[in-house]
Amino acid sequence: MLDEDIIKKFFKRDKLAKYLGIELVEVSNGNAVARMEVREEHLNGINTVHGGAIFTLADFAFAVAANSHGRVTVAINVSISFMKAATSGTLTAVAREISLNPKISSYTVNICNDEGNIVAIFQGMAYRKRDKITL
Amino acid sequence: MLDEDIIKKFFKRDKLAKYLGIELVEVSNGNAVARMEVREEHLNGINTVHGGAIFTLADFAFAVAANSHGRVTVAINVSISFMKAATSGTLTAVAREISLNPKISSYTVNICNDEGNIVAIFQGMAYRKRDKITL
Amino acid sequence: MLDEDIIKKFFKRDKLAKYLGIELVEVSNGNAVARMEVREEHLNGINTVHGGAIFTLADFAFAVAANSHGRVTVAINVSISFMKAATSGTLTAVAREISLNPKISSYTVNICNDEGNIVAIFQGMAYRKRDKITL
Amino acid sequence: MLDEDIIKKFFKRDKLAKYLGIELVEVSNGNAVARMEVREEHLNGINTVHGGAIFTLADFAFAVAANSHGRVTVAINVSISFMKAATSGTLTAVAREISLNPKISSYTVNICNDEGNIVAIFQGMAYRKRDKITL
Repeated sequence: MLDEDIIKKFFKRDKLAKYLGIELVEVSNGNAVARMEVREEHLNGINTVHGGAIFTLADFAFAVAANSHGRVTVAINVSISFMKAATSGTLTAVAREISLNPKISSYTVNICNDEGNIVAIFQGMAYRKRDKITL
Repeated sequence: MLDEDIIKKFFKRDKLAKYLGIELVEVSNGNAVARMEVREEHLNGINTVHGGAIFTLADFAFAVAANSHGRVTVAINVSISFMKAATSGTLTAVAREISLNPKISSYTVNICNDEGNIVAIFQGMAYRKRDKITL
Repeated sequence: MLDEDIIKKFFKRDKLAKYLGIELVEVSNGNAVARMEVREEHLNGINTVHGGAIFTLADFAFAVAANSHGRVTVAINVSISFMKAATSGTLTAVAREISLNPKISSYTVNICNDEGNIVAIFQGMAYRKRDKITL
Repeated sequence: MLDEDIIKKFFKRDKLAKYLGIELVEVSNGNAVARMEVREEHLNGINTVHGGAIFTLADFAFAVAANSHGRVTVAINVSISFMKAATSGTLTAVAREISLNPKISSYTVNICNDEGNIVAIFQGMAYRKRDKITL
């Protein structure tokens, strides 16, 4: 695994995550946890958290987990299922590595609300480039 | 189809779309086009447009198309494939209705860059509630 | 949950499962396990187990889990990721319920080989009809 | 593109496709059409065509399209949405290439019934190996 400080610094550069108030909680080898406190600007027209905000939170956790091995890794496909509307509080995304092949890796991300109920499930597949992560 | 003005007013309430600068271009029966000019805050840590921004743009076009029949309709599942990185210019999402059943409808959304190249494909499934859209 | 014997009898009627040698191992409330011994006719042109055979095994476990509550439930969307080729032995699919709403339920199915390695992950969403399961 | 005869011979080796009566209708550069006449053994317990049979048909068209460039190409992820139950007649799967990158390519497959109605939509992503297709 890449040094944790380097990963954290690398992901500080994620402008959309910053703009939406997404925060990296922890990262370990192939896994990551991220958090987002629901704000007014995360909502859709019916005042529930927008699918795009939930996706971005999960995608961020997925990206950290996938890049934790030190190689630049990009999302190629995601399937996300929405189970429960969220309206307020903090959402937490927990990404776990399911498989790691030389070129392709895959991750499951659970997104939960404050009560621990699953709001959405995200299944992501990533392509591992040759480039190493550097600051 | 619902009156176009009502749909447009209804989707003005989408706070995340507004926050990200997503604009509704047109809507017809089961179809919609949306647009997003790439801004600094849409980028990820490697300076390409964040998957979350592309998803949100596509999800917005999908939501407009799915709600165009006048019933409140929510996303239940999305699969998105990312084909090409985007870095600048304007992204356009075109949502087409593929099927419309009493409870479930489904849509394909193509997201293209200024050159008309496909950046991502989004396949969305929605659940149609009983509630009518009202302002 | 529906009586286990009724579920088992109901799924004996699945002709494709029978044709491919898929066997129901166990079922409980929202969960199911199915098994398939790899045969010559499950293979593709490069002599690995065909994605269609793996899908069918997982789909069967998913269907049993989703119908275990006693209401006729049909698949509306599946995302499947293939991690590792399989060539022989027995494949086992374990389906777990992730969420259960009045109309929509969702399941994750892990498909493993004899060594317990994940061959594929299947994420399925189902629509729950009003009809009860009867023999 | 690989010689059409070689592709056709190569896919004659697909044992599951043969076992289910799936037939290759045509192949061109990145595209393919396959067909399956519905048989008793394709059905599920409620006498509609099994999702696994529809998937296998679509997966076959996808595989032919993806391998048509002459490099061994394997499915890594598929999302399939089921819109309409099928019970009899012939199902046709039409696979079109959406993108072709050095390592990853992606395809949309529409599965229609005899009336031309969409039964399912299949979105597949494939990994292109270095190996060339040989007989």
